[in-house]
Amino acid sequence: MESDDTNGPTDDLVADVFARDCPSRTIVDHVASKWGTLALVALAESPYRFNALRRRVDGISEKMLSQTLHTLERDGMVVRDVQSAIPPRVEYSLTDLGAQVAARLRDLIELVEGSVNEVIQARNHHDSSAA
Amino acid sequence: MESDDTNGPTDDLVADVFARDCPSRTIVDHVASKWGTLALVALAESPYRFNALRRRVDGISEKMLSQTLHTLERDGMVVRDVQSAIPPRVEYSLTDLGAQVAARLRDLIELVEGSVNEVIQARNHHDSSAA
Repeated sequence: MESDDTNGPTDDLVADVFARDCPSRTIVDHVASKWGTLALVALAESPYRFNALRRRVDGISEKMLSQTLHTLERDGMVVRDVQSAIPPRVEYSLTDLGAQVAARLRDLIELVEGSVNEVIQARNHHDSSAA
Repeated sequence: MESDDTNGPTDDLVADVFARDCPSRTIVDHVASKWGTLALVALAESPYRFNALRRRVDGISEKMLSQTLHTLERDGMVVRDVQSAIPPRVEYSLTDLGAQVAARLRDLIELVEGSVNEVIQARNHHDSSAA
């Protein structure tokens, strides 16, 4: 853990995602969820307004994108910036921490995208063995 | 995509996790799910028998671990090895692809574990601003 002058509840403890009550587990849940992953990686490309982000993350519902952004904002990964205009222009972008997390998720996604044929072959092999 | 001599359904296409029907999205769902992540990262430490893995992934139910391992086995990430003994000894380990995915997840988890205080402070700040 980073050293820290405030008295947070986890000071002097080492975070361990394998411990069921460690807060790190909820953070992994949020960022590694299907929609959390896609929202963070999209926002690493550029800031987005809500509707543009919804188009980028193909298939997400308005409600789910709203919930996902709220959770990531509360976790300090995403910033919601309201710019004064008529009507107000709301833009979402990543914090430094959000950008670091998104870079790790990007590495994962690139590996998975490059392995799709291998996985499809494994599935076909598995399903024909089971039949 | 890697070049491939077989006629898989995605040959000549570029995988894109942002496209809602791309199979890469289901793979990300499987490996980045809460339990998929923990099972893969645990198996990167060493092979495990079922009950030992269940103790390592604190909080997972027997049914959920069984489902998670089956999904990862079908995707070609995990190998289930039945060793002849009485009673038979069943051990789970990672494939090469599973190990590559687990290494990416390990990077993500280490970042998250090191950022727990920062996230908790962000949550406290967010909740006190909203109150």
